[in-house]
Amino acid sequence: MTRLIWTVVLSFAIAIALGPIVIPWLKKMKFGQTIYEKGLESHKVKQGTPNMGGIIFAVPMIIVPLIMSYKNPMGSFLPMALASTLGFGAIGFVDDYIKVSKKRSEGLTPMQKTVPMFVLALALSVWAYLTPEIGSKLIVPFFNVEWDLGWFYIPAMMFIIIGTVNSANLLDGVDGLLGGCGLIDFATMAIVCMSLAAAQAVPDNNLLNVMIFCGAAAGGILGFLRFNTHPANVFMGDNGSFAIGGGLIAVMMVTRLSLLLPVIALAMLVSSLSVIIQVGYFKYTKKKTGTGKRIFRMSPLHHHFEKGGMPETRIVSMYMTITLILCLIALTMFAA
Amino acid sequence: MTRLIWTVVLSFAIAIALGPIVIPWLKKMKFGQTIYEKGLESHKVKQGTPNMGGIIFAVPMIIVPLIMSYKNPMGSFLPMALASTLGFGAIGFVDDYIKVSKKRSEGLTPMQKTVPMFVLALALSVWAYLTPEIGSKLIVPFFNVEWDLGWFYIPAMMFIIIGTVNSANLLDGVDGLLGGCGLIDFATMAIVCMSLAAAQAVPDNNLLNVMIFCGAAAGGILGFLRFNTHPANVFMGDNGSFAIGGGLIAVMMVTRLSLLLPVIALAMLVSSLSVIIQVGYFKYTKKKTGTGKRIFRMSPLHHHFEKGGMPETRIVSMYMTITLILCLIALTMFAA
Repeated sequence: MTRLIWTVVLSFAIAIALGPIVIPWLKKMKFGQTIYEKGLESHKVKQGTPNMGGIIFAVPMIIVPLIMSYKNPMGSFLPMALASTLGFGAIGFVDDYIKVSKKRSEGLTPMQKTVPMFVLALALSVWAYLTPEIGSKLIVPFFNVEWDLGWFYIPAMMFIIIGTVNSANLLDGVDGLLGGCGLIDFATMAIVCMSLAAAQAVPDNNLLNVMIFCGAAAGGILGFLRFNTHPANVFMGDNGSFAIGGGLIAVMMVTRLSLLLPVIALAMLVSSLSVIIQVGYFKYTKKKTGTGKRIFRMSPLHHHFEKGGMPETRIVSMYMTITLILCLIALTMFAA
Repeated sequence: MTRLIWTVVLSFAIAIALGPIVIPWLKKMKFGQTIYEKGLESHKVKQGTPNMGGIIFAVPMIIVPLIMSYKNPMGSFLPMALASTLGFGAIGFVDDYIKVSKKRSEGLTPMQKTVPMFVLALALSVWAYLTPEIGSKLIVPFFNVEWDLGWFYIPAMMFIIIGTVNSANLLDGVDGLLGGCGLIDFATMAIVCMSLAAAQAVPDNNLLNVMIFCGAAAGGILGFLRFNTHPANVFMGDNGSFAIGGGLIAVMMVTRLSLLLPVIALAMLVSSLSVIIQVGYFKYTKKKTGTGKRIFRMSPLHHHFEKGGMPETRIVSMYMTITLILCLIALTMFAA
């Protein structure tokens, strides 16, 4: 636990130190967010706030685990977590960069984004499938049974990976929202890995390395929130939301706990579902009656609350509180 | 750990349920905060927000430990924590009540407040001194030595108790500030009690009961923050800040970790110190030069930041983040 704490503190310190270097640089390079044209009126004031701040936590998230795990053999889990974070973060980075250099709200075309995500998800799924410590079994939470998917593990895991990364991206719409929820998720998974390792006679290095990775992610995000809390000085951008999504799903994959995601990352799930329901219902009613109807004032769900007049700070506090309570309940699975 | 989690969840649920009952009732009874006349301009809009919301978390903080510890013998620690919370909370409650019924910013006179606090602090200190499991020794953090104060324990502890309760009261000046920091402090002390109990061959019921108390406090405050996060629907009032201060110092006293307070409750300490420095320097310069000078724009320190233009939400986030990092460092003392 001591090592986990120092990991969090080190990662936090790096993020705090990076902020005052990265933010003025982003401003100078004019990486200001071009707010999506059809968005909320109240968000127009955010025009000019620099984007791409995700590197503030993505850097410690990748470097700190390498530093803090130097005494352990690398194992098979940590490389997967780092590859997923770095891979998805890089896709997001390119997307952000194009947005800025072309001065438009859309970055990569949907196809340019989907193909590398698909390839990366396939590579990670096959890698996990072929790794003896992971294989094709998923743990069913709260029932404590294993569910062997066989070869179907690969398409199922690809769906979960792409879904999680995109859901994280959708949740990043209000100052501090994805950061706050991601912080709680990574802290929870650090405790889960610690508990799982403590339950073993000889603690598994793989688990300890993933614990360190989760701690580094949590510490980095905590430092980033210093600059991203409402009113935000910087947004994380796609590089940040993809890195959080990629890092989180990798942790769930290697611990075989992907089915716990709907509990600890419910905020991400409802963001995706609300978009799917909104778009689906609109298309259905348009086809049926000629005019499209909406269920939510705006999707993802947090914008529905925002349009309903709930202040941004209250939305973040509500999402974070619900996430914290759900994570605590999830932890009862692993607690003595 | 499972029992601790369910304690937090139960306490949270009670606070969430109490909110929609208590807040309209407070509004109806016109328990609106009369904002201190010399205060900040920006706080004038807060006129009319109901005060005395502390009962939303004080009720679960007292009831839930009694429910969740029913299987254990009561022991000597839990009654002290409950007595301190209830006692100081009651003094604050009377203060709040007078403010409302007399429609003025000042409640009890300084003397009417000091005397019962003094008596309660004396009673708690003597009680602790005479309890064999506590006695006159304090643990010196990070050096892991015990410091025997002898009979001097009683005045020293009285000073610490009164100082902590008043410091908590001073920290309660910005939406969610004391709640957020108190939440982290109680959560930390719950983990400390759990670690201390786990290190024993037969876990001490006293420690487990204090752990449950800390969990109940954390859960209740988390629920309260749902209503107190900026922009606040309700303020906790003196009953709330005194209950947090009283509960926290009791936990530190029974675990003999009072000297850890400057670390985990640094936010409270700087609030007090900034007031003392501000007033002292003003009096000194007034005597010396004829005109009093100020060091801070306004004291306590959080108002200094606020007058400097920092948004309330950023102040809370900064205080909470620093508290969290300090608490993590404090936890390294107890971790394996």
